[in-house]
Amino acid sequence: MPVDALRRLAAEAVGTCILVATVVGSGVMAEGLAGGNLAVALIGNTLATGAMLYVLIVIFGPVSGAHFNPAVTLVFALRGEIKPVLATLYVLVQFSAALLGTMLAHAMFGLPLIEHSMHVRAGIGQWMGEAVATFMLVAGILGALANAPKAVAPMVALTIVAGYWFTSSTSFANPAVALARAFTDSFSGIRLADVPGFMIGEVVGALVAVAFAGWLWRPLGQPSPRRGEG
Amino acid sequence: MPVDALRRLAAEAVGTCILVATVVGSGVMAEGLAGGNLAVALIGNTLATGAMLYVLIVIFGPVSGAHFNPAVTLVFALRGEIKPVLATLYVLVQFSAALLGTMLAHAMFGLPLIEHSMHVRAGIGQWMGEAVATFMLVAGILGALANAPKAVAPMVALTIVAGYWFTSSTSFANPAVALARAFTDSFSGIRLADVPGFMIGEVVGALVAVAFAGWLWRPLGQPSPRRGEG
Amino acid sequence: MPVDALRRLAAEAVGTCILVATVVGSGVMAEGLAGGNLAVALIGNTLATGAMLYVLIVIFGPVSGAHFNPAVTLVFALRGEIKPVLATLYVLVQFSAALLGTMLAHAMFGLPLIEHSMHVRAGIGQWMGEAVATFMLVAGILGALANAPKAVAPMVALTIVAGYWFTSSTSFANPAVALARAFTDSFSGIRLADVPGFMIGEVVGALVAVAFAGWLWRPLGQPSPRRGEG
Amino acid sequence: MPVDALRRLAAEAVGTCILVATVVGSGVMAEGLAGGNLAVALIGNTLATGAMLYVLIVIFGPVSGAHFNPAVTLVFALRGEIKPVLATLYVLVQFSAALLGTMLAHAMFGLPLIEHSMHVRAGIGQWMGEAVATFMLVAGILGALANAPKAVAPMVALTIVAGYWFTSSTSFANPAVALARAFTDSFSGIRLADVPGFMIGEVVGALVAVAFAGWLWRPLGQPSPRRGEG
Repeated sequence: MPVDALRRLAAEAVGTCILVATVVGSGVMAEGLAGGNLAVALIGNTLATGAMLYVLIVIFGPVSGAHFNPAVTLVFALRGEIKPVLATLYVLVQFSAALLGTMLAHAMFGLPLIEHSMHVRAGIGQWMGEAVATFMLVAGILGALANAPKAVAPMVALTIVAGYWFTSSTSFANPAVALARAFTDSFSGIRLADVPGFMIGEVVGALVAVAFAGWLWRPLGQPSPRRGEG
Repeated sequence: MPVDALRRLAAEAVGTCILVATVVGSGVMAEGLAGGNLAVALIGNTLATGAMLYVLIVIFGPVSGAHFNPAVTLVFALRGEIKPVLATLYVLVQFSAALLGTMLAHAMFGLPLIEHSMHVRAGIGQWMGEAVATFMLVAGILGALANAPKAVAPMVALTIVAGYWFTSSTSFANPAVALARAFTDSFSGIRLADVPGFMIGEVVGALVAVAFAGWLWRPLGQPSPRRGEG
Repeated sequence: MPVDALRRLAAEAVGTCILVATVVGSGVMAEGLAGGNLAVALIGNTLATGAMLYVLIVIFGPVSGAHFNPAVTLVFALRGEIKPVLATLYVLVQFSAALLGTMLAHAMFGLPLIEHSMHVRAGIGQWMGEAVATFMLVAGILGALANAPKAVAPMVALTIVAGYWFTSSTSFANPAVALARAFTDSFSGIRLADVPGFMIGEVVGALVAVAFAGWLWRPLGQPSPRRGEG
Repeated sequence: MPVDALRRLAAEAVGTCILVATVVGSGVMAEGLAGGNLAVALIGNTLATGAMLYVLIVIFGPVSGAHFNPAVTLVFALRGEIKPVLATLYVLVQFSAALLGTMLAHAMFGLPLIEHSMHVRAGIGQWMGEAVATFMLVAGILGALANAPKAVAPMVALTIVAGYWFTSSTSFANPAVALARAFTDSFSGIRLADVPGFMIGEVVGALVAVAFAGWLWRPLGQPSPRRGEG
């Protein structure tokens, strides 16, 4: 394996692991301190996640693109910006590293490395929430790449900050993170049986965003391909 | 209709819809979790709204200007920076998409798509609040365009973040959003009968800001047109 | 009076008025919603003040320098960067506009335009707090001007965000704002008798910062004037 | 002693002192106002610390590098970017100024200048927390220096914002700050006997980050030195 691919995968691995450790760990801390006020806990969870996303994307973006997310890797594969083999490796690394992230958070807080969440997260509303959240995440990334490439890090961080609050599902928006969160029985957990519904919502949202972004952010004034065909 | 106008209107539609879904949805989430502490709920509402405004303006600004707001479109029409026909379409799209945003938030949270707010928001103090909020919003936009064009997104986001707290009306500052919020009986709602008072305050604040900005941010040292006439 | 000075004074007036309206108004809102948890109230007060400071400095900085603060105007007068007559006008405008800001906040919230605060803020610790707060404010401004001129707005906003929490006096750091806050009997008020102590602390902190900054941020490697004299 | 070294040490001294005063002082304020809700207190502590770190790094970075942290100075000494004698002086100044920072916070809040913390912070989980926190801090600094040098200030600020929540130890990540916090019996304190365990975790995390960063952020496509040796 060439060294560059190895470094890319290392960046994805460390970034995804720390991201999940941040989501899970800050949930444990926040819920433990909040004395039952879950809105206060969610504020702490939000600050930590948004801050860490910004940091991880700035430092790992130039190496691997800082996907940390199979839905995002799928988007770049569909756009032909990452080769299928490397994309597959990215996704495998993301799922593995996300699980390690849950275990790292549990180790820091003295919990069993693997737990099973009892947190029911299901229903049409929440699946729609994941679709909306992932649509906005991907639209934010592609919109920033088209218009303000240096703004990708704040785009992602702030989309998730908002998503924690305005979507009924609290914006997982990431299949690898969703699966990893099934193995913590804390604030950020999700019942394993509910993960597939979340993943489907996420992929649907990502695909709609790819189509929308491909149409919207062509250079202004450039004729639509469809108009030429019509 | 030329494709560019279509893309502009699509950017206004998606941006306004997601903005209102963020305001309403984060209000539902925050109030539901906050256990009666409405200041905690308003913190969550503030973080989500500010974050999403930044994202939406960065990605849709280069397409449509990212108005999402009839008062802002009125400002640019008065300044001759958008043609009356397109401005009218913008406003129609904003009102329609804002209502869809309320419905999207309700769908995600399993609420009836349309509700009727009982939240009384009226009186001279609150109308003055809307005028001050919209004055600051428009002054922030025009001041940024005159001095630091890349700062429009943080200007708008942070003006609304502050406005949620320092104005007695919590800074709707947007006639389309105000109307859409009449159809949710949740944290961010407003009684339909109280919407016109808010709208009038908003338009007054916007007009004062246009006059003030036109005078203040002429290049320093350039003689005032009025002095030449005097 | 030349038009430019008029515009400068207008920028100082509007900026100072809105700044105080933000401090006072967000205090009224936050305390009213927080149900007795004053830390939650201070979070709301902090978010609003920091956000508005950033906005006001970005839009009014290019016109007037965005002092909004007699201690800051004193600093620039001592450094010879504003003429004494204009500095005097700045200070008069700042005190007047700050009082209008309190009245504007009260009008929005339906309170008597002028109240008298009963909030005791005194003692060596709090005076030291004001000195530290104003030292950091002026060091932040002069340090940014020396090293990263575009960072003045976040410097000021974030210095005050931190100061609201780490100084025992909650970082008024501004004689005009301190006096204006004597006329609100709400969260952000200060007993009129306690204002002079705060002002003295603020001026002391500003003067120490001017001396420190003048020594520290000379270009690196340039010999100190004092060494040549020694 | 040449004047430049003196100015460098002064920047480290003032920066470290104010940093610790911010951590300790905002802890005193937040705990005092929060009425027992420690998550609310930690939000205040987080906002203040993150904001002040950004300010201090922007204004003192161009003078001293804005280490404020013996672990960071060790990193730059290992990389040959600061000479051993100056590094030793940095570390002595950092430990002394950190203690002064605790005393400054206590003076502002009317507490005894020196207290002894009873706050137990120990165990493998918390030591691992310090290692993870300091790994991320150093990776953030070195990653920013390699990819986006102007982003060092937000990197550090946001890494600590996240670390306050997702690490079980609340991310001291700084041996000088850890020791200084042993002398306050308030929210941010740590029992003196527990400081060595924290310091060991911090140094381990820093060393791992140096090795990782040296490997990861070589220019992409450049062959690894080790491959040539293998």
